[in-house]
Amino acid sequence: MKICRFDKGRVGIVEGDQVKDVTSALEALPPLRWPAPFGDHFIAHLDMMIPKLREAAKTAPALPLSQVSLDTPVANPARVIAAPLNYPLHVQEAANPAINHGVHMPAHDGFKTPIDKYGLFLKSQTGVIGAGQKVVLHWDGRRNDHEVELTMVIGRGGKNISREDALNHVAGYCIGLDMTVRGTEDRSFRKAADTYSVLGPWLVTADEIPDPDALDFGMEVNGEVRQRSNTASLICDCRDLIVRASRVYALHPGDVIMTGTPDGVGEVKSGDVMHAWIEKIGDMNVSIA
Amino acid sequence: MKICRFDKGRVGIVEGDQVKDVTSALEALPPLRWPAPFGDHFIAHLDMMIPKLREAAKTAPALPLSQVSLDTPVANPARVIAAPLNYPLHVQEAANPAINHGVHMPAHDGFKTPIDKYGLFLKSQTGVIGAGQKVVLHWDGRRNDHEVELTMVIGRGGKNISREDALNHVAGYCIGLDMTVRGTEDRSFRKAADTYSVLGPWLVTADEIPDPDALDFGMEVNGEVRQRSNTASLICDCRDLIVRASRVYALHPGDVIMTGTPDGVGEVKSGDVMHAWIEKIGDMNVSIA
Repeated sequence: MKICRFDKGRVGIVEGDQVKDVTSALEALPPLRWPAPFGDHFIAHLDMMIPKLREAAKTAPALPLSQVSLDTPVANPARVIAAPLNYPLHVQEAANPAINHGVHMPAHDGFKTPIDKYGLFLKSQTGVIGAGQKVVLHWDGRRNDHEVELTMVIGRGGKNISREDALNHVAGYCIGLDMTVRGTEDRSFRKAADTYSVLGPWLVTADEIPDPDALDFGMEVNGEVRQRSNTASLICDCRDLIVRASRVYALHPGDVIMTGTPDGVGEVKSGDVMHAWIEKIGDMNVSIA
Repeated sequence: MKICRFDKGRVGIVEGDQVKDVTSALEALPPLRWPAPFGDHFIAHLDMMIPKLREAAKTAPALPLSQVSLDTPVANPARVIAAPLNYPLHVQEAANPAINHGVHMPAHDGFKTPIDKYGLFLKSQTGVIGAGQKVVLHWDGRRNDHEVELTMVIGRGGKNISREDALNHVAGYCIGLDMTVRGTEDRSFRKAADTYSVLGPWLVTADEIPDPDALDFGMEVNGEVRQRSNTASLICDCRDLIVRASRVYALHPGDVIMTGTPDGVGEVKSGDVMHAWIEKIGDMNVSIA
C-alpha cells in the first residue's frame, strides 16, 4: 500500500495516478496524551490502521495525484538518523576538498568501513518536508548539494535489534533527500537545516519491498542525470544500519533512517528542480525555492 | 518557580526540600492530536499552566524531595541542540589526542570561534533521562566522559531570533550532562546514546535567572572536584547560541540547548556517582549503572 499525506493534514492511499482521501479513518486512532510516546502516533498504529484505511478507501473520493500537494509521509518523525559515506564511489568522490573541507575526510584506515569510523549521524526531525514543499537554501554563496537516498521508516521500536529480525521493524520505505551544505560544520548542523530533509512521495509499506538492498534509484536536476545507483552497492546494508543504530539509540515508531547517497552529489541553486526516483517506490519532483 | 517531573508522570513544584504534587493541574492542558506540534505540549502551554500549578499547590500534598525519583523536566524535547568547544580552557584540553582522536580537532584557524567552524550539533532527544535514572555506558573499554553544562529550555519558538529578543524565548534553565564517549564518530552518534543526555534536577523558570551568563557551576565525581567554572567564560554566550541555532533550525517549545562544557572533562565508570550543580538552579546526583 502507498500511503500519503497531502494538502496539510489529509491522509490518502495512492493508486495509479489517483489519491483516495481516507482521512476519515483517522477517527480510529487512540487519543494522544502528554507526555506523548516518542515518534509518530499514526505509524505506531499502522498495523491496526491499514484495514481501516482499506475500508475507508471503498467509498473515498478520488483525486488526481497531480492536483494534490504532498506532505511528508511521516508527520512526527522520532528522529532522522542518517548514514555517511555508505557507497564506495561516493567515498571516492568525497576525497575532493570541495566536499570534505579538510574536516570530513573519507579515509578510514584501520576501520572496516567509514561507518565504523564515523558512526551514524542525526538530522533534525523538525527539518522534514514533503515533495509538495520547497527546499530553502540556508547558506548563500556556499555549495548546497543534493543527495538521494533510500529511506526506511521504523514501525516497531527496539534496542539491540538482530540482523535476522531487522527488516521486521520496518513499516515501509520512501525516497529521502539529504540536502547538505559543504563545509567544516558537523553533519548534524550543515545537513539539518529546516527543509534539508525531504521525504516522499509517500510511504510504501514493507510488504511491497521484500528486498530493499536491490533497488535501482537515481536523481536528475533540471533533466540532467546526476546520480544513478542500486542499493546493492550499499557498504552497510539496510539490516546492518538498523543493527548499528539500535545498539546506540533505541528505535521508535516513526524513526527515519536514511541509508546514504551514491556518487554524483552536486550543487543545486535557487529555481532548480530535482527529480528523484526509486524502483518500487515512485518518483518526485522537488524544487529549490 | 522550580517545576519537576517525578515518579513516572507526576508533576511537582519544588519548595525547599519538599515537592508539592500538582499533577491534577494537567487537566487544564488542551487535548493533543496527531500530527502533534513539534516539541513539548506542557512547555508550549507553560505561561497558561503556571497559575494553574500555583493554584493546585495551595492544597497539594507535600512529599520529601529525598523520597521521589526525578524524571527529565522536559518530557518531549523537540530536539537536544548542543554546543561543542565553547569554553577556552576546554578548547585547550581538547588538543589531547585522547579527546580529539585525530578527528575532532579544536584548532579553528581562520574562524572566529570553534562554533563558527564546527557549528552546533544534535543529540538524540530520545536519549534524555532525569536525575533519578542511571547513565548506561554503551561502549565498553572506551573512555566515557562527564560534561556538565548550563542548559536552556525554549518556551517560545521562532526562526532567525535576534540577540535582543533571544532570552525572551527561554522558558527556563536546568543542569545538563552531555555524556560522551571519546572516539572518531560524529558527535551526534557518540554523544547521543540512550541515557547520554541527563537533564535535571528540575526546570527553573527564566524569571529566577535574569542573567544566565554569570552562574557558577561544577561537577564532582565520587566526591572529587572535576569541573568548576562560571558561564561568564562561555565563548558564545546564551543569547548567541539561540541566534545561531535559530538561523538554521526554527526553534520549538521544548527545544533543549546545552551550552557547552568547561575544562575538567574526565572518565566515569560503572558505579560512579556524579554530583552536578549550578548556582540558582540546584544540584543533582546521577549514577553510572
